[in-house]
Amino acid sequence: MCQLLGMNCNTPTDVTFSFAGFAQRGGRTDHHADGWGIAFFEDRGLRHFVDHQPACESPVAELIRRYPIKSQHVISHIRKATQGKVNLQNCHPFVRELWGRYWVFAHNGDLKDFRPRLHGNFHPVGDTDSEHAFCWIMQELAKSHAGVPSIHELTLTLRELAPQIAKHGTFNFMLSNGQALWAHASTNLCYIERRHPFNQAHLADDDISIDFARHTTPTDRVAVVVTTPLTTNETWMPFATGELKVFVDGQSRE
Amino acid sequence: MCQLLGMNCNTPTDVTFSFAGFAQRGGRTDHHADGWGIAFFEDRGLRHFVDHQPACESPVAELIRRYPIKSQHVISHIRKATQGKVNLQNCHPFVRELWGRYWVFAHNGDLKDFRPRLHGNFHPVGDTDSEHAFCWIMQELAKSHAGVPSIHELTLTLRELAPQIAKHGTFNFMLSNGQALWAHASTNLCYIERRHPFNQAHLADDDISIDFARHTTPTDRVAVVVTTPLTTNETWMPFATGELKVFVDGQSRE
Repeated sequence: MCQLLGMNCNTPTDVTFSFAGFAQRGGRTDHHADGWGIAFFEDRGLRHFVDHQPACESPVAELIRRYPIKSQHVISHIRKATQGKVNLQNCHPFVRELWGRYWVFAHNGDLKDFRPRLHGNFHPVGDTDSEHAFCWIMQELAKSHAGVPSIHELTLTLRELAPQIAKHGTFNFMLSNGQALWAHASTNLCYIERRHPFNQAHLADDDISIDFARHTTPTDRVAVVVTTPLTTNETWMPFATGELKVFVDGQSRE
Repeated sequence: MCQLLGMNCNTPTDVTFSFAGFAQRGGRTDHHADGWGIAFFEDRGLRHFVDHQPACESPVAELIRRYPIKSQHVISHIRKATQGKVNLQNCHPFVRELWGRYWVFAHNGDLKDFRPRLHGNFHPVGDTDSEHAFCWIMQELAKSHAGVPSIHELTLTLRELAPQIAKHGTFNFMLSNGQALWAHASTNLCYIERRHPFNQAHLADDDISIDFARHTTPTDRVAVVVTTPLTTNETWMPFATGELKVFVDGQSRE
């Protein structure tokens, strides 16, 4: 099983602290050594890094740990290959363009016999079940809406689509188009919403603490979604099975 | 005007030497300080780096200079904004997926009044003439072929499409799908094909020399295409106006 990390904020925030702990799971504190990736939205633009080296050894991961890229929407993934070879084209997150926006997707889980025929404009480059599912979601979104719909409408469509895939196996996923972060849980996913007053947090995977109060302003809101809790001294909320949540401006909507 | 760099090889080769000189043009030896980008194919997979900081100052460019990513198909671009704001979504190269392959495009020049209606499945995320032209090319490729055609067929189609755009202004561009590198010149583009016996080369933009004989095997072939020559002691071949060349396995075809 892979590991997922998502961040959604109301102001561009760097993910350095969370990523420092998360990257340890790529071969050091956990056995997810088959590559990793991270995508940061900056406005409509995207920085997308993938590497099939373990995240704990990758020079690109080292760059991310040191260089505080600020973003409102981040999705990261550490891979433990279940389907598909270990190569660059199979590293998550995957990216496609639809309606003049980039869409970023990462999946944790294993889908059995979910290879629907793709009759639309999205086709996998690699051979994972995950990218196939992403292409199917994009195809169905394109069929369901004529242009970028509201976040609420997209959420409704995704709540129709996700269960159709989830019945084929474990389907924890994150999706963003630079306006919101959608997260769906089959099994393991939890989240935290940080806001004023900010406290200290201590990483579960590395001996690092941070005092968020020093790095934030009172109006900042940051939501972090992850496979298993990143910190030892905060309360992470678990997702229910089959739950799809949408995060906008650092908080869960609806 | 922007600067373009492309590399096509018969064996995965790092672009560190060429990029070291090229990156100096992003704000140091030339005035192209409105961002930069580079894309490396690894098999069907892609590493894509963009930054709207000048290439000579960017921490991501520093990573590329130091970390020898080996690839058979590389496209890089340093931007001097003529149309479109300075932001991440306007940085070249641009990427789209078609027929289960990634396509990478970068443009140097300025197109006047080329904003055809895009009725297909490719829409710009940013607001440059370049990304609009790329989306139009992708739309027309998708209409012309049912699946990935041969390199020869693609070359013929591109030779029909390029002049339709080039009549609107300067249209030097590079395109790759991980199988070949296509390059089209309106004004400035030149290339070199390096092969056995390899010699020393000296960068024009930085005081660096390299003895390629030490880093290659006798069967290696490397083609480099660039806006203006990167080295002072090699013979670079100029493109003719309106010429579209295709490079496969480190050499020009046809």
